[in-house]
Amino acid sequence: MPAGVRVLSEHACFGGVQGFYAHDSQDCDAEMRFSVFRPPQAASGRVPVLWYLAGLTCTEETFMIKAGAQRLAAELGLMLVAPDTSPRVRLPGDDADWDFGLAAGFYVDATRQPWARHYRMYSWVTRELPQLLAEAFPAGDRHGIFGHSMGGHGALVCALRNPQRYRSVSAFAPIAAPTHCPWGRKAFAGYLGEDPGAWASYDASTLAALQRFPSPILVDQGTADKFLVEQLMPERLEQACRASGTELRLRMHEGYDHSYWFVQSFVEDHLRHHAALLNS
Amino acid sequence: MPAGVRVLSEHACFGGVQGFYAHDSQDCDAEMRFSVFRPPQAASGRVPVLWYLAGLTCTEETFMIKAGAQRLAAELGLMLVAPDTSPRVRLPGDDADWDFGLAAGFYVDATRQPWARHYRMYSWVTRELPQLLAEAFPAGDRHGIFGHSMGGHGALVCALRNPQRYRSVSAFAPIAAPTHCPWGRKAFAGYLGEDPGAWASYDASTLAALQRFPSPILVDQGTADKFLVEQLMPERLEQACRASGTELRLRMHEGYDHSYWFVQSFVEDHLRHHAALLNS
Repeated sequence: MPAGVRVLSEHACFGGVQGFYAHDSQDCDAEMRFSVFRPPQAASGRVPVLWYLAGLTCTEETFMIKAGAQRLAAELGLMLVAPDTSPRVRLPGDDADWDFGLAAGFYVDATRQPWARHYRMYSWVTRELPQLLAEAFPAGDRHGIFGHSMGGHGALVCALRNPQRYRSVSAFAPIAAPTHCPWGRKAFAGYLGEDPGAWASYDASTLAALQRFPSPILVDQGTADKFLVEQLMPERLEQACRASGTELRLRMHEGYDHSYWFVQSFVEDHLRHHAALLNS
Repeated sequence: MPAGVRVLSEHACFGGVQGFYAHDSQDCDAEMRFSVFRPPQAASGRVPVLWYLAGLTCTEETFMIKAGAQRLAAELGLMLVAPDTSPRVRLPGDDADWDFGLAAGFYVDATRQPWARHYRMYSWVTRELPQLLAEAFPAGDRHGIFGHSMGGHGALVCALRNPQRYRSVSAFAPIAAPTHCPWGRKAFAGYLGEDPGAWASYDASTLAALQRFPSPILVDQGTADKFLVEQLMPERLEQACRASGTELRLRMHEGYDHSYWFVQSFVEDHLRHHAALLNS
């Protein structure tokens, strides 16, 4: 494996390869982990890449183990990539709370110390890791991105800020307006400082109102999700998309909660959503 | 929930319910855990039950999280049930090895102390738990059984000893001849005593040679499975089935290992195998 990628493990899966990897990230000044599912089609050429950003407490393993996405990725010829959710260097207070620090990087480039040195998840996910994928894996130049909860926030922000890079975007139960919810306000204050003016570029609902995203955005949300009202606020994303003329396909699912039992139930629709845009 | 079943958690999943439960087992004289996926069809009547027995180090959660079986169970109208792999009472030495004691019950009724009081997995899985399922869940009277590794051994033994109860059986990388491999010999000596005469009733290859199983047995096995030669020995099951005229569909899969990346790759074929026999 070139480009400084270390193979942690690789397994045959649905005719492709499920792998777990590490590399020395320059952006994060740390060893960073990520997982890749290469579909069978990647054995004979470059394939579109679908990024998945996971939520609080998760790792690069969570989605690959719990979402059941490989079957359809193999059928549709999509490479799946799931980055870890934070650097794993140890900093003072990084495990004091489950919603800040370790496994809670919120996909921002931190500007406050001590986080600013390592917690540069936005740059790592949108710039360094895509370059690495192109060098070390048969990653094509068509990219889509999705995620869950904190990762749904991350996916929306990455896509809305880089519509030329990400052709397609979707989310499961995203933190849709982090500047307005406790999780987001705590994370942004910690990583970016107390000035809310610095937060706007990481708020999906703020970004979605600014310009029209070129392709429809698919969002699934369970009605029995205990975080729906206080933390997730999909209605703010809905208003923002309406303001910019972005097509939002927001589906509310009766009785579903915030877990991967919910994610796996609808993951097929997401892969088909991305494949239709990435393969067209 | 009647019949002394305690709900640990329940989640909407593929239009059905994924649940985790505990009850006070008489057979095991202990609290025992199990998981159940109720397909949407179970909301309006009893449905066939497909049992899954997991392998060493696993719990009642492993299969439900890692195998990606709920999608198809929901489509086919099968209830999935996954028991824990051992009692969780603490006994001297039960965590000294990963292949004996906790999470390594081997689906036998132990006769040696201190295991004999609690480690009665065979009775719990084949008798007490099915009764509980019929009382507390919409379980029909058609049952199939499958499993992985130690659980593949367990599934084969349960079916071969109770062909009137289990209409269908299959396995992923089963310990096919435990009386001939290190894992099995260690477990049987520990739970059943040093006399190999007491082991035969828990050896799938011995049992398969004695009488013809009425339906075809499906077994998937990866060629890159590091346990294949020393521990699994599918060739002994093959010989036994030939001797009794049992149809064995043994499929060797190039490059696949012993993990759930392998299991999930072929789980659809297993569910369809069982559904064809359970719904006919």
